[in-house]
Amino acid sequence: MKEIMNILGKQARASAATLRMADTNAKNNALLLAAKRFRQDMADILSASAKDMKAADENNLEAALKDRLALNEARVEAMAEGLEQIAALPDPVGAISDLVYRPSGIQVGHMRVPLGVIGIIYESRPNVTADAAGLCLKSGNACILRGGSEAIHSNRAIAKCLREAINEAGLDENVVQLIDSTDRALVGALITADAYVDVIIPRGGPSLIKRISAEAKVPVIKHLDGICHVYIDKAADRDMAIRIALNAKTHRYGVCNAMETLLVHQEAMDCLPEIINQLLDKGVEVRGCTKTQALNVQVVAATDEDWATEYLAPVLSIRVVDDMMQAISHIEKYSSAHTETIVTADYDAGQRFLRNVDSSSVMWNASTRFADGFEYGLGAEIGISTDRLHVRGPVGLEGLTNQKWIVLGHGEIRS
Amino acid sequence: MKEIMNILGKQARASAATLRMADTNAKNNALLLAAKRFRQDMADILSASAKDMKAADENNLEAALKDRLALNEARVEAMAEGLEQIAALPDPVGAISDLVYRPSGIQVGHMRVPLGVIGIIYESRPNVTADAAGLCLKSGNACILRGGSEAIHSNRAIAKCLREAINEAGLDENVVQLIDSTDRALVGALITADAYVDVIIPRGGPSLIKRISAEAKVPVIKHLDGICHVYIDKAADRDMAIRIALNAKTHRYGVCNAMETLLVHQEAMDCLPEIINQLLDKGVEVRGCTKTQALNVQVVAATDEDWATEYLAPVLSIRVVDDMMQAISHIEKYSSAHTETIVTADYDAGQRFLRNVDSSSVMWNASTRFADGFEYGLGAEIGISTDRLHVRGPVGLEGLTNQKWIVLGHGEIRS
Repeated sequence: MKEIMNILGKQARASAATLRMADTNAKNNALLLAAKRFRQDMADILSASAKDMKAADENNLEAALKDRLALNEARVEAMAEGLEQIAALPDPVGAISDLVYRPSGIQVGHMRVPLGVIGIIYESRPNVTADAAGLCLKSGNACILRGGSEAIHSNRAIAKCLREAINEAGLDENVVQLIDSTDRALVGALITADAYVDVIIPRGGPSLIKRISAEAKVPVIKHLDGICHVYIDKAADRDMAIRIALNAKTHRYGVCNAMETLLVHQEAMDCLPEIINQLLDKGVEVRGCTKTQALNVQVVAATDEDWATEYLAPVLSIRVVDDMMQAISHIEKYSSAHTETIVTADYDAGQRFLRNVDSSSVMWNASTRFADGFEYGLGAEIGISTDRLHVRGPVGLEGLTNQKWIVLGHGEIRS
Repeated sequence: MKEIMNILGKQARASAATLRMADTNAKNNALLLAAKRFRQDMADILSASAKDMKAADENNLEAALKDRLALNEARVEAMAEGLEQIAALPDPVGAISDLVYRPSGIQVGHMRVPLGVIGIIYESRPNVTADAAGLCLKSGNACILRGGSEAIHSNRAIAKCLREAINEAGLDENVVQLIDSTDRALVGALITADAYVDVIIPRGGPSLIKRISAEAKVPVIKHLDGICHVYIDKAADRDMAIRIALNAKTHRYGVCNAMETLLVHQEAMDCLPEIINQLLDKGVEVRGCTKTQALNVQVVAATDEDWATEYLAPVLSIRVVDDMMQAISHIEKYSSAHTETIVTADYDAGQRFLRNVDSSSVMWNASTRFADGFEYGLGAEIGISTDRLHVRGPVGLEGLTNQKWIVLGHGEIRS
């Protein structure tokens, strides 16, 4: 395993050194050529996917997993369009900012640079192969991809298109390498290869991410749970509060930026009956504190475990709080630091909530569902970081870079 | 050990949640009051230091270590002034940037926020207790400090002043906690306490830093070797090249931003005899490639090990290169990614060097000695990062923070 990883690692390092200097046109060309190839090689990609689906049937994979695994013409076309969108984004690499003169006479500023080599570990969805490689390529990073064994044929076909396009664009095809083996020991080799890999981005369920974080020697950008809160303040516009609460819970259930807990100021309880009725109408199970339960017989008691659970399902827990500080304390205790929102018309309350809540996205009068790279204008995202270091929230091209210092002098020396 | 760490960790977490919201005046007051206490309690601090020095004598500590350990009136005064300088710096916490309207109607931007709890592990110099605590406090982070056992009495006296001042300013004194034990197992407990500590910053020699990085479960901001290069291009102004090379090597020998290797374009060798003569005059040992050796009989052969060594001493290795790409390849292979500089009057060469060299500071016509938080305008630095993630180069207040996303809405929901 170590030998395979050493070969991949050395190739990645060498290619990263050339990709760092590649001009924007070459990177965009590679992305556009790959999109073209996805369309041209549609039949090959779909027949590779058919092999994965056949194996999935034989292994009795569950339906949800098979749905994520399946490729069809529309999904391959979406992958191609995704790469075209990445090509259209501004290139972050080399951007210079904050260049100022210092008393010594030197000019000091920042230049945005790639991180180096990124390891991506993911499950089932083969489109991640294209999306992740595209984002890494545009941001000047070499990547080593480790997809799920159930998607190996699809991933191979997609990686082949990508590497051929990169080569055709005059770049080193080793900037995108797929670990072409289903041996799980290679995951261990990848996450401990700190000589060759600068950061690991796992994409998958919490158990995968926790296992990788525990064993990694390479820094990990993590996306753990999304236990998101909506807090309805006493000064909330009631119609707005109802609209946001319903959207945050019911727009989509299985997403990380859906609300899992609703906190309501005791003086804003008047909007709760309407919210609860609409939730029940939509088939959402409502759990709640004693005060919430008193409003509707269908509300069942919420336990301490409920407050700490990411349902990803039509279930919501509601708690009535004495005041905003109790809401913030609740968030402090139970939130996964993903996204929280306050609904209020009160300037002071909104300002304090924005400042005091330590989550990757903090909102005021907007649905938690907006916590998303596309909605924020990143164009695309490789994941959402719930870490505190390097990057928080949706991670786009900029999150895959860092800034070095540049100094422009005129012969200055220290005296 | 785990129990002690759990107590410290819980106190740190709780205090970080309050410090995050503290206003700038309260933090500045705490810093200014601590400076005042250092002066008022001068006698106590010096008598604590005397205990450390007595133990150092008994344990036959080497002279260089004792010099770093010693406190006197001037050094305590310098610590006080350091805190006053930190108080005078702008507060990075809460700063909002890039707030733009999105097509959905929401406004999206960044707010700068503290990292949380920072563990600082350091050796001998007791002034780090004040500097590190001051930078953490101003940037809104709680800190857990682990100084060297040889400085325990000094560190205790300094931490006492800090905590009393913080308390007097109305903040939670647990934002600064000193591990008041010389038990080395506590270092292990600190660097694996990922539930309580968000980042570890070790300050000390490479062996300390490597050991901590290898064993840590908490992310580490590392400062490894400074193998810095000066490259004299063929288009270099010769006087400028000589001035910068001499300054980069001889201004101070024991610092991480001193030049350790000089690379010279073969068409710029005409400036080498003068550089070598002046170096030898200053007592610097000069090692070199064959071409360099041919210039002066006192130049000894440089080995492959020389190119990879941080001398921190009056020793320099010189290599003549065919062209700039060979210089960049040499840097790629041997540099510790700290600081490199090019001397050239050629626009294209300078631009390419700035872009292509992947070090935390890349300079053009300036001495490597400028790679420093004060020279860059940070006001103070807690260290210099040679990592690729989160922050590169000198780490000041901003490097101790990150940015969360803020969303200002008007009742928007996802459709």
